[in-house]
Amino acid sequence: MAFGTLLGHLPVRERDFIKWICSQGAFDAAKVPLGPGDDCAMLACGAERLLVTTDQVLDGVHFVLARHGAKSAGRKAMARNLSDVAAMAGLPMGAVATVALPEGFSRDDCEAIYLGLRSVGDQFDCPVVGGDVACWAGPLAISVTVFAQPVGAGPVLRSGAQAGDAICVTGQLGGAWASGRDMTFIPRVNEARALAAHNCLHAMIDLSDGLATDLRHVCEASGVGAEIDATAIPIHPGLTDKPQRPAITAALSDGEDYELLFTLPTDQADRLLASQPLDVKITKIGTVNDSKHVTVMGLDGQRQPLESSGWEHATGQP
Amino acid sequence: MAFGTLLGHLPVRERDFIKWICSQGAFDAAKVPLGPGDDCAMLACGAERLLVTTDQVLDGVHFVLARHGAKSAGRKAMARNLSDVAAMAGLPMGAVATVALPEGFSRDDCEAIYLGLRSVGDQFDCPVVGGDVACWAGPLAISVTVFAQPVGAGPVLRSGAQAGDAICVTGQLGGAWASGRDMTFIPRVNEARALAAHNCLHAMIDLSDGLATDLRHVCEASGVGAEIDATAIPIHPGLTDKPQRPAITAALSDGEDYELLFTLPTDQADRLLASQPLDVKITKIGTVNDSKHVTVMGLDGQRQPLESSGWEHATGQP
Repeated sequence: MAFGTLLGHLPVRERDFIKWICSQGAFDAAKVPLGPGDDCAMLACGAERLLVTTDQVLDGVHFVLARHGAKSAGRKAMARNLSDVAAMAGLPMGAVATVALPEGFSRDDCEAIYLGLRSVGDQFDCPVVGGDVACWAGPLAISVTVFAQPVGAGPVLRSGAQAGDAICVTGQLGGAWASGRDMTFIPRVNEARALAAHNCLHAMIDLSDGLATDLRHVCEASGVGAEIDATAIPIHPGLTDKPQRPAITAALSDGEDYELLFTLPTDQADRLLASQPLDVKITKIGTVNDSKHVTVMGLDGQRQPLESSGWEHATGQP
Repeated sequence: MAFGTLLGHLPVRERDFIKWICSQGAFDAAKVPLGPGDDCAMLACGAERLLVTTDQVLDGVHFVLARHGAKSAGRKAMARNLSDVAAMAGLPMGAVATVALPEGFSRDDCEAIYLGLRSVGDQFDCPVVGGDVACWAGPLAISVTVFAQPVGAGPVLRSGAQAGDAICVTGQLGGAWASGRDMTFIPRVNEARALAAHNCLHAMIDLSDGLATDLRHVCEASGVGAEIDATAIPIHPGLTDKPQRPAITAALSDGEDYELLFTLPTDQADRLLASQPLDVKITKIGTVNDSKHVTVMGLDGQRQPLESSGWEHATGQP
């Protein structure tokens, strides 16, 4: 979520659109403690707090039906939402889905989509409690909404990063589309909850748009800057340097890694990095500062702005 | 909601698909007190109860973009969901939306959809707290999820109708598509809550699929039969008898009325009908029985099965 992840030829920039939405009237903070702009929104549900997030997968944008099949499309629709819940360290409660079915779809296709949703929902105790299916002349579109509960001290927001924090990521980055990992990733729900339970996380986001863009989201939401170290980025071993695009660029900008990026006090980060309590490796990639700029220290020791399109400068590429 | 309202050429019957879903594993009743099959699902949110519903509107199925425009499409997406909340006598809390934008859409179009959602959401204190927007090569698709709280004695289900209950509807039925009321209706959220607060409603549904079909849903869910009186149906005054299709058929089968159908004990219905406490008229159209059949008493005094396609027999049509 975040209203919204705009792909393809964008008629509107996400950040500008959220600003415009927020200009259309304030939310009642008692009813909506957290409005648009983070990975989930938060609502008051009586005395409880409710996290909600929604995301869609569209044929030709987020999957290719002819290549991936209906079940994988359903799986990805659920997994993307669970990754947004993970980004808030939430506990999934349940999901609903709408499906726009192309003409010629069969009962088997409907069942495959449902089983795809279930295949990853069941792993995180997130049942599909309802939905809507309609046939149309368009391509396959699946929209999922997931409800979750904040746990412990409450959700971990994008906006809590503080100067001096260590910036860490889980896993290895880059090449998700080329390798197909964007269809098969396991959302970091359990890892996020374990991290939040044992550490004072200041900020967290899931890496859907690419490290460079998502780190910028955290910095903008928190009103801070950051510097990352190019030599520290955990580049996925499946990536290789290409003449037009070094592996580090792919790791910074490919997106759809669905790993976690989080910030926390340096002393806590040191202990976390030494103990490595998760099944997936945690890597420190940089430090939050109060500069308002997001920069990368290159292999050549030169500091450069970190562009959303990644980082083309390390090997002298334009 | 209900998983799902299948339109067009259906690859799967709604009831069969829900049965299949329920065969795929039971829900944990402590976490999901109400699963697929009603207008909303209900989840446990800590000590509170949460109603959720989701519905989509698709260009060419639920609206025609070139005729209705983007704002009306957004409005309908929200209003359909609020009507599902009304059917449970719920109190809306908030909504999220996903939008699949056709190529060539502008920032103005995005804003129009948002303002359409807001135009009816604001009427019922249902803010849009988040969403996702993506561009694709397909037509416009808008999916909305609304969260609500059950009020008073809890949600009014489809499954509570009892033999002897009076069957009542709000408003006037039929011709919604032809007149454009399907794009402009005001969901009966306030009426439903007023009815539930002052009466012991046994069952309720919103009339989206057409009276004949929706009454069947209530009877199937409740394990009862019903008989309605053709002379009592509040036919919309905009409808006229046509040679191939009498007005009563339209009123029974057109759908998208988004009025309420509810059942309650006869003595309470009598008081309600005499006092008419709502701004919209309440009409008694029939009685629940224990026959397991849904029938209509025609103008000619003949009892006929009530078909989902309406009722073609009153004027001797096949």
